[in-house]
Amino acid sequence: MGYPCGMKRYLALPMGEASGIGPEIIIRALTSGKDNWYGPVIVVGDRALFRRTSLDLHLPLPFTSYVTNDEELGSEMVAGEDLIFYDIPCIDLESFSYASPSANTGRAVYETTLKAVSLIQNSYASALVTVPLDARALSAAGIETNRYESLVSRLVGSVRSMGMLDAGGVKIFSHSHYIPLRQALDLVTPEAILDTIIRVDSLTQEQQVFNLDKPLAIASVNPHYSDSLGWDREEREVLIPSVEKARSIGIDIVGPVSGDVLMHRAARGDYRAVIALFYDQAHIAAMSLDYDRTVTIDWGWPFLAVRVDRSARMEQAGRGVARAETLIQALSVARDYITKGVVS
Amino acid sequence: MGYPCGMKRYLALPMGEASGIGPEIIIRALTSGKDNWYGPVIVVGDRALFRRTSLDLHLPLPFTSYVTNDEELGSEMVAGEDLIFYDIPCIDLESFSYASPSANTGRAVYETTLKAVSLIQNSYASALVTVPLDARALSAAGIETNRYESLVSRLVGSVRSMGMLDAGGVKIFSHSHYIPLRQALDLVTPEAILDTIIRVDSLTQEQQVFNLDKPLAIASVNPHYSDSLGWDREEREVLIPSVEKARSIGIDIVGPVSGDVLMHRAARGDYRAVIALFYDQAHIAAMSLDYDRTVTIDWGWPFLAVRVDRSARMEQAGRGVARAETLIQALSVARDYITKGVVS
Repeated sequence: MGYPCGMKRYLALPMGEASGIGPEIIIRALTSGKDNWYGPVIVVGDRALFRRTSLDLHLPLPFTSYVTNDEELGSEMVAGEDLIFYDIPCIDLESFSYASPSANTGRAVYETTLKAVSLIQNSYASALVTVPLDARALSAAGIETNRYESLVSRLVGSVRSMGMLDAGGVKIFSHSHYIPLRQALDLVTPEAILDTIIRVDSLTQEQQVFNLDKPLAIASVNPHYSDSLGWDREEREVLIPSVEKARSIGIDIVGPVSGDVLMHRAARGDYRAVIALFYDQAHIAAMSLDYDRTVTIDWGWPFLAVRVDRSARMEQAGRGVARAETLIQALSVARDYITKGVVS
Repeated sequence: MGYPCGMKRYLALPMGEASGIGPEIIIRALTSGKDNWYGPVIVVGDRALFRRTSLDLHLPLPFTSYVTNDEELGSEMVAGEDLIFYDIPCIDLESFSYASPSANTGRAVYETTLKAVSLIQNSYASALVTVPLDARALSAAGIETNRYESLVSRLVGSVRSMGMLDAGGVKIFSHSHYIPLRQALDLVTPEAILDTIIRVDSLTQEQQVFNLDKPLAIASVNPHYSDSLGWDREEREVLIPSVEKARSIGIDIVGPVSGDVLMHRAARGDYRAVIALFYDQAHIAAMSLDYDRTVTIDWGWPFLAVRVDRSARMEQAGRGVARAETLIQALSVARDYITKGVVS
């Protein structure tokens, strides 16, 4: 049990991979927050590491208070502090160096994420915002998952979550994610596609951030299949029948539409959300439409989670050159979604 | 034999599918040309049809002179006319209606394209710029090809041309084009990939519009394969060895790079050009990066050819709502490439 959230709704922000750009972009994003207000935040990390990052990179720390346990946190929240640092001493600074993911930094990702999730579960915070981790560090720490979605799923109990890209407002689901392309094509079956359509439709009906006046739309496997001369096996056998079945049960969906046309129309605002069929369709579109403002939302957990879905950028670590734009966007999207009534 | 080009170098612009948006966007683009100067143009089309389009859509015609044969054309060119209309009476206005591709409009696409190519072959014009055609019209006319690249290849003798997207300056080749995705994956073989790399490298060395200080880059089949746990068959067996072999013979190329990262870096200016492996990688990126300024260049013919690579937009035909931005870009790119010394 924790303190009730009161008037302010905090975002919980664990520090991510400590030897990458996580701490730097957190400092930068929260410093810029004076101009781009996205409300109160609790950063969960190692205070000594942040002090070192601040000194090394000449970046003043933006935090207005520091706490080391839930009681102190509650007091600072009651006092109305906006940028609270929750200190979990977990980094061995003797052995730490930038761009060196290790068992220590992997363990720290796990501990700070666990703490951030527990802050939400105990009502101190309303949503989780995450910065990049590094699979090598988690592996070195003996942690079996290498991505936030599986890490958090493990912490909240096994939940079938659904990732969605938000590229500056363009909302892109994907039938499959981080798997080989041929395997993604094998997953284009009538049952699986209809299941994805139904799940996406339900979710967009439940949450308040989708424009229900607009239809869903789904991509085709084959480019401009309707002009093709028999190149439309997946469309004829799987996608068109699945879309028809979905429409017959009342789902407002169009398609399949050739990926390039689909993504252009999505950017123009024609759809409630789109369903890509494989990683490249979704991610090339998002990164090309709006690189700095592409974030990932994981739906399906009992709280909102927004990810900066990039690598931990070891080549930039400790050099003071990292850009915080995408984290700023993640914080803004989280705040916007909470304001619009997304579950927390 | 025709007139020598003299000081002015004309772009030849056949009218495309007459029942689609072609004539309208040609009128709009050339009218806007007063502000966006892309030099002298010869439009090849049916004058009566353009008059009708002008009246129906309340768009004044921009042409400064009209000709009906090569001698008259030569005189107007010598007189320094900039916007010349070459009249080929080929549309039966009695049976014509907007959004109705027919044997008549298909035949007209063929005849006007043939004339435009012959103007280039006879040195009246320096480059071909095309607006959308409609496969149904060509098919109704009994013409066996349904795309400009095959139509023009037939006119100039069978040439192995190579299409390239130019998305506001980002240059994207593709190992395969308008084919089913599974077939595109089957074309990812060591011999074929090395052949594509060598062809793209030669071409970028020959033509003057590529930044040779930058490397080529090639996409991966599988997303972020290097972090994957054995999901990298195509990369291990085909792409990495092909890139190594290319580098061993002196080609400056990097990759394979995950499609989303590749296209972001390309947009940032990191590469001379990129090689996508299938249609969606190339086209989703281009359409998402810069929809209005994405045009296609067909390399390999004895002259420069720039295409507005879209559908003929039957749903907009005759309504006066078509947008000419992409044709304006095609004319600008053609002029820019000619100025930089691209073959003509």
